Amino acid sequence: MLKKKDKVILGVSAGPDSMFMFYQFLKIKKEYNLRLLCVHFNHGLRKESDGEEIFLRKVCKKIGIEFISEKKNVQDFFKGDSLEQTARNLRLDFFLKCSRQTKIKKISLAHHKDDLAETVLMRLIRGSGLKGLKGFSSKSKFKNLTIIRPLIEIRKKDIVDWLEINKISYCIDKSNLDEKFLRNRIRLKLLPLLEGLNPNIRENLYNLARNISLDYDFIYSLSYQKFTELKLGQMRNSLSLDLQGIKDLPLAIFNNVIRIAVEQFKGNTRQLETKHISEIRDLVFKRPLGSVVDLPDLQVKKEAKALIIQSLIL
Amino acid sequence: MLKKKDKVILGVSAGPDSMFMFYQFLKIKKEYNLRLLCVHFNHGLRKESDGEEIFLRKVCKKIGIEFISEKKNVQDFFKGDSLEQTARNLRLDFFLKCSRQTKIKKISLAHHKDDLAETVLMRLIRGSGLKGLKGFSSKSKFKNLTIIRPLIEIRKKDIVDWLEINKISYCIDKSNLDEKFLRNRIRLKLLPLLEGLNPNIRENLYNLARNISLDYDFIYSLSYQKFTELKLGQMRNSLSLDLQGIKDLPLAIFNNVIRIAVEQFKGNTRQLETKHISEIRDLVFKRPLGSVVDLPDLQVKKEAKALIIQSLIL
Repeated sequence: MLKKKDKVILGVSAGPDSMFMFYQFLKIKKEYNLRLLCVHFNHGLRKESDGEEIFLRKVCKKIGIEFISEKKNVQDFFKGDSLEQTARNLRLDFFLKCSRQTKIKKISLAHHKDDLAETVLMRLIRGSGLKGLKGFSSKSKFKNLTIIRPLIEIRKKDIVDWLEINKISYCIDKSNLDEKFLRNRIRLKLLPLLEGLNPNIRENLYNLARNISLDYDFIYSLSYQKFTELKLGQMRNSLSLDLQGIKDLPLAIFNNVIRIAVEQFKGNTRQLETKHISEIRDLVFKRPLGSVVDLPDLQVKKEAKALIIQSLIL
Repeated sequence: MLKKKDKVILGVSAGPDSMFMFYQFLKIKKEYNLRLLCVHFNHGLRKESDGEEIFLRKVCKKIGIEFISEKKNVQDFFKGDSLEQTARNLRLDFFLKCSRQTKIKKISLAHHKDDLAETVLMRLIRGSGLKGLKGFSSKSKFKNLTIIRPLIEIRKKDIVDWLEINKISYCIDKSNLDEKFLRNRIRLKLLPLLEGLNPNIRENLYNLARNISLDYDFIYSLSYQKFTELKLGQMRNSLSLDLQGIKDLPLAIFNNVIRIAVEQFKGNTRQLETKHISEIRDLVFKRPLGSVVDLPDLQVKKEAKALIIQSLIL
């Protein structure tokens, strides 16, 4: 994940995980000759938010680490989707902006092994395919940014123990957003029950996520390649795929090519459910030319030589 | 799953699920012009076992359905592995024998939607990759046998309700083998907790299994093809794969080619764990020629042009 002389942005919330990560980076800063930049996004969601930003700024100033923060009231940007998703998108935008400003292209985030187990279970509960179950990896890309997660093999209790022993201050996020509520239930109820059934459950979930990650990445990259080959054209209001070409795909690849096409066209696949993919499969393989399937914001139409994805908002 | 004039073996235990299936087949027997054969494997594990066999024989005689049963004391064949696995293997052997005797190549089993959700969770708890999480499908192959599972979209409660309304007798299996113990915990503790977090959990697990099934089958068939291309030779005590060829594979395919090779060589992959696959990956990509990895019953050796899987029991 790291090379000597690397420049690394540290995404720090001031909570225990990211403070632990911050101090581990300090420990190896000299040996690795690192340039570190600590960045903090103030979501303005809790009364403690501003205090946490000030706390971090002071810590960084004292130690002599560059610090950038930004405050945005997430509530102002929330459009009835998910508040966590809004917060996540704004935070990622902020990280991208920090990266552009400083030309540092690597960011380290403090997700650990227990987070991974919880994430896999959360995705399982909410409903997901391979893409969700892979959780997150030790290294991934987001646009021009390389995301590393050096704590991915570390257990939460080891983090808390270390902070305790080393008398490191951190802040505790007492908010209880939907996702955090679900995570808390998973952590406090579900994982202990699963641990009773198999003490190695976290290890198993970790291995599962890693294996699924490999499988998903392979299928995704093959599907992406097929999507590029089979895309006939893309305009502002429509995207068309070669009909015979997609009919000839193995079903696993077909499904992913449809997902990629919707993602490319619309920017996301958040409202695209399993049942929608089935409807499109029916359309392609069984229904007559000229038939359509209506999806949230989209219409998919079967024409003589092409499957057309078009916007409903013209 | 069914065509008119089909010949179908019904695997019936005398429990509620298989009795339900049995009566549904009777209802469509005439319309579909089916030949039905009811088969029952007596595991001899409980004091009620013989009574259940006699019960089923009587039911079939009364209705006029062919019936074959066989009794084997599973305990006598149990070699310290898993008792359920031993029972499952003996039962499958019996089904194959019935198929050979009668030349009927289709068998129907009574797994339903709740079984699928429980199976996916059981595999998740015990640790599994894609292969386990796909659960079972509505149609699969076992050697020359086509297995159909017509109840796969039916909920257990609807089965029990129907049996109640139609006053159908069935037997209850009170045994509590390891696997059944785990299944009971999943049914009585885990699923209600998950249902509290998401009322659609069974539907989600069902969709997950179906999606994963597609993805797994695709990766497996591609891996099998690569395995065939890269197998240099197989003798009684060794199997060799083209070293450069497997190095060039995407990692997801590499892992599956190794699994397939072990399966082909040894007959199963039961003792092959994720960590073993990692060790083989290390051997292939990082360690010097001549190095070996020791696995349960097997040794894997890296030679100049080949990766050799060899038996430790000569």
